[in-house]
Amino acid sequence: MINTLFLPELREMLLDKLSEELREFCVALHPARTAEFMEGLDSSETWQVLQHADPGLQAEIFQYFEWDRQVELLATQDDKQVAVLVTHLPADDAVDLLHEVATERVDQILALVPATDRRDIRRLQTFAEGTAGAMMTTEAACLSESLTLRQALDQLSRQAERLEMIYYIYVTDDTNHLRGVVSTRALVSAIGRPETKLVDLMKTDLVTANVQDDQEQVAQKVAFYNLLAIPVVDDQRHMLGIITHDDVIDVVRAEATEDVQRIAAVEPLKDSYMRTPLTTLSWKRGIWLTILFFAALTTAFLLKSYQLELERYEWLVLFIPLIISSGGNSGSQSSTLVITALTTKDVYGRDWATVLRREAIMGVVLGSFMGIIGFFCALFLAPTIYAAMVIPITVLFVVICGTCMGSMLPLVFQRLGLDPAMMSNPFVAGLSDILGILIYVNVAMLLLR
Amino acid sequence: MINTLFLPELREMLLDKLSEELREFCVALHPARTAEFMEGLDSSETWQVLQHADPGLQAEIFQYFEWDRQVELLATQDDKQVAVLVTHLPADDAVDLLHEVATERVDQILALVPATDRRDIRRLQTFAEGTAGAMMTTEAACLSESLTLRQALDQLSRQAERLEMIYYIYVTDDTNHLRGVVSTRALVSAIGRPETKLVDLMKTDLVTANVQDDQEQVAQKVAFYNLLAIPVVDDQRHMLGIITHDDVIDVVRAEATEDVQRIAAVEPLKDSYMRTPLTTLSWKRGIWLTILFFAALTTAFLLKSYQLELERYEWLVLFIPLIISSGGNSGSQSSTLVITALTTKDVYGRDWATVLRREAIMGVVLGSFMGIIGFFCALFLAPTIYAAMVIPITVLFVVICGTCMGSMLPLVFQRLGLDPAMMSNPFVAGLSDILGILIYVNVAMLLLR
Repeated sequence: MINTLFLPELREMLLDKLSEELREFCVALHPARTAEFMEGLDSSETWQVLQHADPGLQAEIFQYFEWDRQVELLATQDDKQVAVLVTHLPADDAVDLLHEVATERVDQILALVPATDRRDIRRLQTFAEGTAGAMMTTEAACLSESLTLRQALDQLSRQAERLEMIYYIYVTDDTNHLRGVVSTRALVSAIGRPETKLVDLMKTDLVTANVQDDQEQVAQKVAFYNLLAIPVVDDQRHMLGIITHDDVIDVVRAEATEDVQRIAAVEPLKDSYMRTPLTTLSWKRGIWLTILFFAALTTAFLLKSYQLELERYEWLVLFIPLIISSGGNSGSQSSTLVITALTTKDVYGRDWATVLRREAIMGVVLGSFMGIIGFFCALFLAPTIYAAMVIPITVLFVVICGTCMGSMLPLVFQRLGLDPAMMSNPFVAGLSDILGILIYVNVAMLLLR
Repeated sequence: MINTLFLPELREMLLDKLSEELREFCVALHPARTAEFMEGLDSSETWQVLQHADPGLQAEIFQYFEWDRQVELLATQDDKQVAVLVTHLPADDAVDLLHEVATERVDQILALVPATDRRDIRRLQTFAEGTAGAMMTTEAACLSESLTLRQALDQLSRQAERLEMIYYIYVTDDTNHLRGVVSTRALVSAIGRPETKLVDLMKTDLVTANVQDDQEQVAQKVAFYNLLAIPVVDDQRHMLGIITHDDVIDVVRAEATEDVQRIAAVEPLKDSYMRTPLTTLSWKRGIWLTILFFAALTTAFLLKSYQLELERYEWLVLFIPLIISSGGNSGSQSSTLVITALTTKDVYGRDWATVLRREAIMGVVLGSFMGIIGFFCALFLAPTIYAAMVIPITVLFVVICGTCMGSMLPLVFQRLGLDPAMMSNPFVAGLSDILGILIYVNVAMLLLR
């Protein structure tokens, strides 16, 4: 929703070149709100307004624009201004943004960025997407272990300008190996003793992430240890950067969305739904739909092989959709519950026997209940009460099959090193269609012959 | 997985009463790891080890035990020790924990807790679950606006002991109204000018949460503004507490799990899967399965009304499962994509026309593709090539119905103020079963008669 509250005033200020007022507009509010109020402006107006903030604030406001907006603003401005912006963005965000710019232009822009920032950006660009390296930023508060608290505060106050935020103070030795961490709480409580050495304030049992770690793993670590930020190190324990809590929330969100999409048999979208081209969407949905379609086709040939039976007891046909969806629905409930339990570390592979026992009981309970309802309806459609018994018996077995299979497949796929969320539901859906028909016809033959 | 690495040593230390070593064990590691190494101990051993840490650290380690463990430890210890623990836990965690204890015992325990902490706990207990009030903790760094930086640091260093962490320094007036916030970065960069007033360092455009706000709303705010913590205020803007980023990650996680479960037609579980009693599980799954079962039952009566047609063209029966699952699968893909897009604010209700257009195109593309595969298989099972045409035409229409219905239902439910995740998939599944049969038989009658 575009906030148009200030648009007329902003445009008037631009027209009348009221620099004082525009500056005031930029600094008075939280950068997120400033960005919100600017949403209705076009690119060139936006840049004109941003000129009235100093580069640090400019970058902060810029970060709160919608992604599409950011890309558009980059595309419409000259390299020099973009370079100033890139210099003041957190390095990880700058890298993400430069991904959207043509390679030649990236080189031209980076040529205008100060050497140290350029080096940071170049280095971050080398890390593979989805790793800790690609997620981290280089703006961390790092101090040498030999400093006293007084010296540390002095250095920090000079560093503070270029830092996004001070989460923890990381302590390194002369060769940039990470040695320990001082929390702002520890810092503040020692403030009365300025000659304390950092080495005496720091904690050395540090939780770190390796630069090659998977982002999901890192997010879980940060969440588990309740950290504000986690330092990223290489195999030699050199301090490389930090990953902050806000990036972790984004990862948790993105991974949750991916899981939901996988459970619904959609290959996870890299981009948002609205921005994903229809060709990509067709592909990501089509592959799974085709697999499911072939599974369902099997049922056609299966039914063909039972055609004689079906002709003799025509009323059986009426319940085919019911039988199939009973198995599919109860199975997808079970697999989803187990998948979410695996994600939240509530269930591990070794718990399979407990899970199976629970799901078998669930199958009996739910299957009996639905079977009873099914029986009473079957009385209207089946020729005799005895024949109607086919329905509850089939529903019971199909639901038990559904819950047991639905709960075990995710564990099997995890064991095989495959993503349980991706594989389970399509398999459960396909298998329960086929098993449903098999059980149905065999129960019918047994009872009715 | 229980970490047994230190268990023998720990037990030996306890046996030999090696207080020095036990104390060292408690303080040397990150509290999360200390807790991990203690997992194999029984309750009374755990308490004995914890005695060697001072109460603050005790509470910190305690928080990293599994929830069941925490509850068990509380149950097996005397009120006095529990009271010490409760005093040192963050007030919001203490409240959650006391929920698990019988009401009379809570009173006995709280009687042993210092008055200020008791008051905090009692106050937090009054907030409804799922609101900002129930999520917040009272341990925030609060200072008066009239202080200078020097005085502020002095007060802070005294407060630091009882604070979990210093995220931001909140500035209040004499009557505890929230006036502004000072970041640790701003604090550190001003450290060379100790006579600066807090009022000159603070930002006044504050993002706050109201104590009555829904926790999901609060989580979204914190994530959007990239905050470490958000202050919680009442309608008169009195400062009541803060909600920290780690609680937000938990909420994001929990909400994601709930959404996944709802999409799979399970009423969200309050507890973890393994700890939810089977009776609760039967209920939470049974209600939706029953609704779905009744929808599927409709298909039986529907098929009954078309029985004459089906008897004349017996081969049509073979494709019933295929037709039904094509609609169901493509529909659940669409509804899941739209539900996740709604959650991530990628799609709003006003975008319905764009969404419908995209999904209609998707339906045509996917439906045509699957229809072609279906046609070639139908050639084997249908009596003539002309008759086989029934299958691709039906699949095409059913898939278009599925994608359009699947994408529109979540928007409709949201418009009606219902949870789109909860309502959509069961409805899509039920409706696509029924529509599938309707389309199928009508296409067949039109072509074959």
